[in-house]
Amino acid sequence: MRMRYGLYVITCEDPSRGRGHLEVAEAALKGGATTIQLRDKHMPAKELYRLAEEMKLLVKSCALGSIFIINDRVDVAAAVGADGVHLGQEDLPLEAARKILGKTAIIGVSAANVKEAVEAERGGANYLGVGPVFPTPSKDDAGEPIGLGGLEEIRRAVSIPLIAIGGINQDNLEAVLKAGADGAAVISAVAGAEDMVVAAQRLAQMIDLHLRGGE
Amino acid sequence: MRMRYGLYVITCEDPSRGRGHLEVAEAALKGGATTIQLRDKHMPAKELYRLAEEMKLLVKSCALGSIFIINDRVDVAAAVGADGVHLGQEDLPLEAARKILGKTAIIGVSAANVKEAVEAERGGANYLGVGPVFPTPSKDDAGEPIGLGGLEEIRRAVSIPLIAIGGINQDNLEAVLKAGADGAAVISAVAGAEDMVVAAQRLAQMIDLHLRGGE
Repeated sequence: MRMRYGLYVITCEDPSRGRGHLEVAEAALKGGATTIQLRDKHMPAKELYRLAEEMKLLVKSCALGSIFIINDRVDVAAAVGADGVHLGQEDLPLEAARKILGKTAIIGVSAANVKEAVEAERGGANYLGVGPVFPTPSKDDAGEPIGLGGLEEIRRAVSIPLIAIGGINQDNLEAVLKAGADGAAVISAVAGAEDMVVAAQRLAQMIDLHLRGGE
Repeated sequence: MRMRYGLYVITCEDPSRGRGHLEVAEAALKGGATTIQLRDKHMPAKELYRLAEEMKLLVKSCALGSIFIINDRVDVAAAVGADGVHLGQEDLPLEAARKILGKTAIIGVSAANVKEAVEAERGGANYLGVGPVFPTPSKDDAGEPIGLGGLEEIRRAVSIPLIAIGGINQDNLEAVLKAGADGAAVISAVAGAEDMVVAAQRLAQMIDLHLRGGE
C-alpha cells in the first residue's frame, strides 16, 4: 500500500500575510490537505518544540489519517512524536535521522536530480520532495527549477512516492501529476492565498480527482 | 563521584581569528582542557554532523576521559554519539533531550539565576553552565552579568557541578572558583588567544591547583 501524501502543505511564516503557522495548518487541513509540514529555520528549538506539540494535536484532531512532518529538526520530531521529518540535502543524513526516529517514522528527503533521488531511495527514504519544479518565491535557497522533464526523469528512476514542490498552483498542478507526482507540496499557494481554505480545497480536489482517475 | 568538567572550552568560529572549530578544539585539548563543546548556531545540520564526527574522534584520541558536548542540536549529539548536549534556556527542554539521549548522556543546562538552576537540577541536569559571570564579547545574546555574588547564590541553591561562564580569564578565574564553580567555560580566552595551547594550559593548571587544594 502506497502512503497518500496528497496535498502537502508547508507552513512557513514568510509568505503567510502575517498569519501564524497554526492558522495556516488549520486552514489547510479544513481545505483537505493530507500532510502538514512545519518548517521554521529561524525559531529557537524550545519555541519550535512548543509549536510542534500544538500543531500535532491540531493535525491529529482535524482529520483522520493526516500526516504531521517536521522540517530539519529530528530532535524536535522525536520529542513531540511527529509522524516524521523532512530532510533537505543540507540537513542531517538520512541514516542518522533513521537511527534516532526508528523504522516506523516517515522520512522524506529533498531531491533535485536522479542521483539524489536514487541515493535517498536506497537509503530508505519514505518519500521524496522533488523540485523545485517551477521557479518559486518562497524558498530563497532553492536551486534552478528542474521543470516537468526533471520530474519525469526522477519518476522513471525511483518507485517511492514523489511529492512535487516549487511554484505549484492550480494552473500547473494537473501537469505535475501527469508527469508522475503522487502529491504536491505548496507554501505560497495556500499560505499566501486570500482564502486559504478555498485555495487548499481546489488543490486537494484536483489531486483527489487525478488519483481516482488513475485507479 | 563528581564528574570533572575542569577547563571547558567552547569552540566558536567568531572570536577565533579565522581558526576553525577543530583547530581550537585540538589546541584546547593539548593545553589540558577536559571538556570541549561544539557550538555553531548557523551551520546547516549536515555540516555540523560531519564536523561533530571529526571532533568526537579528536576529543577521544587526544586525552583519556575528555568530554565531548554539542550545543543545542540533540539530534546531532545522538547521531554522532557525543557524550552529551548543552541546552540554553531557548533550546529543547531538558526532559525532551533526556528522552532522546537516554539516562547516561550528560545534559548541561544554562542557568542565569537560582530559579533556572533549581529547575534544571530537579529536572535531572548533570551540570549547569552558570553565567554570564562577567561581561563578555563572545555571546551577543547573553544577559546581564550575574557577578560572583550571583554565582555564590546559585552555589548555595544546588549541588550539581557548576561551570561558570562569561568573561572568564586568568585574572578572575581564581575568584570564580572560590565563589563555588567546579570548572570554567571559556570561548575567547582560548579561541581568541595568540597561543591557544598556552592560554588553555594556564587556565587548566589554575583549575587543577584549586581542585587539588580543595581535596
